[in-house]
Amino acid sequence: MQYGGGGNAFSNLISNGSYSFSNPVFAALASYSSMTLLKMLGMSTYTIIQRFRTRNFTTSEDDIYKQLMNQLGHSSGTIKSKNDIVERVRNNHLNDLENIIPFVLIGLFYVGTRPKFDCALWHFRIFFLSRILHTIAYQVPLPQPTRTISWLVGYLSIISMTIPILRSIQI
Amino acid sequence: MQYGGGGNAFSNLISNGSYSFSNPVFAALASYSSMTLLKMLGMSTYTIIQRFRTRNFTTSEDDIYKQLMNQLGHSSGTIKSKNDIVERVRNNHLNDLENIIPFVLIGLFYVGTRPKFDCALWHFRIFFLSRILHTIAYQVPLPQPTRTISWLVGYLSIISMTIPILRSIQI
Amino acid sequence: MQYGGGGNAFSNLISNGSYSFSNPVFAALASYSSMTLLKMLGMSTYTIIQRFRTRNFTTSEDDIYKQLMNQLGHSSGTIKSKNDIVERVRNNHLNDLENIIPFVLIGLFYVGTRPKFDCALWHFRIFFLSRILHTIAYQVPLPQPTRTISWLVGYLSIISMTIPILRSIQI
Repeated sequence: MQYGGGGNAFSNLISNGSYSFSNPVFAALASYSSMTLLKMLGMSTYTIIQRFRTRNFTTSEDDIYKQLMNQLGHSSGTIKSKNDIVERVRNNHLNDLENIIPFVLIGLFYVGTRPKFDCALWHFRIFFLSRILHTIAYQVPLPQPTRTISWLVGYLSIISMTIPILRSIQI
Repeated sequence: MQYGGGGNAFSNLISNGSYSFSNPVFAALASYSSMTLLKMLGMSTYTIIQRFRTRNFTTSEDDIYKQLMNQLGHSSGTIKSKNDIVERVRNNHLNDLENIIPFVLIGLFYVGTRPKFDCALWHFRIFFLSRILHTIAYQVPLPQPTRTISWLVGYLSIISMTIPILRSIQI
Repeated sequence: MQYGGGGNAFSNLISNGSYSFSNPVFAALASYSSMTLLKMLGMSTYTIIQRFRTRNFTTSEDDIYKQLMNQLGHSSGTIKSKNDIVERVRNNHLNDLENIIPFVLIGLFYVGTRPKFDCALWHFRIFFLSRILHTIAYQVPLPQPTRTISWLVGYLSIISMTIPILRSIQI
């Protein structure tokens, strides 16, 4: 991918802050953050699919959906596995919230420290790939420690981004 | 509402990046995000109110609150409905986290793509209203599919905002 | 701590937007947000430690970890206390998500309202300290209402930051 490059020299001069799509680091953060957040939003849809498949709904007003599925004649699994399947997606979604949101927020401050483009891009790429692998490892599921390691790689790349932020503050 | 417009021409020139309250799109995002986040923060207070009403607390050290309510002579419902009432608020709060936070984060990058003001404002308005309706539908509760549809409208307006972000990246 | 001060006058002039590390309010938000988010990320590690200590894992593929701990001969508590210990950390983590993320997001818009440095710094400091105290009160655990009050102080400092944001919008 090629980032930024649009705009003439003058517009770059007057908006040469870090937070502009003419800064390739910010453009990279924007695209990788959006892709990772879309992955996270996908968990909502996946939860709904699994709820309909297993007819496992939370509230009494959702009984209308259960009746609908029964009329359509779809069979559902046993109570035990129903909860397991939906809980697995819910826990995956919660783990995304706990990791992807801090990534984007710390990423925003990290861009302000004007990191080298390649260094920043590899942080974003590694984080993005680690979360894709984490989701696959959680939902297939792959044998442990695949899930733990993929989570850890993303976790460490967030922590690595906080170092230049905390260093840039003069104590 | 009228956004921005303050400041003289020179200050607009030197700070004409997207991320300034002199950019009406950013000002609109700031206000709608703040209002939606305040709604989300309100769920914490509502959870506490429901916990006291139903004397349904989580930890052993919270027993002091249970004793307090018993001394005040307030009656509480049955165990079954107690959990249901508090769980309904908790699930609503979690759904807010899963949707409102991505809205604000993707909204921040969306502002950087310099969308048309009207187009951006309607995205923010529709999202805000969809979350208000979602909360009412969850807590009253209104018959389904009101809650599902109000969630879906907000969800689609987030996804719609990612399109210009991913497009602005030259591949 | 001393914030900003780097860069010459010209670079300050052309990048004198609010969102730059040359703006001491933004630099303060960056450091306090990063520190609070690191604290929140720490809850993930603490959850894992407590899961291993109590051998309380969620998924079937995690049984490999349970077997590992059994081979190492570590004893674990009773089922009841195992759930309580891990649930306590999980609930603390969720409370962090519900409060720390809105703090950072509202903080970003708050910086755009150009608040006085001292006023902003005290908001960030009080919030950070309230969350540290909240975590200690939750995990020790300290007698109530320590946890409730420390949560409330942080909550009110977020709400206090929304006032200038909503005021800066001309209706």
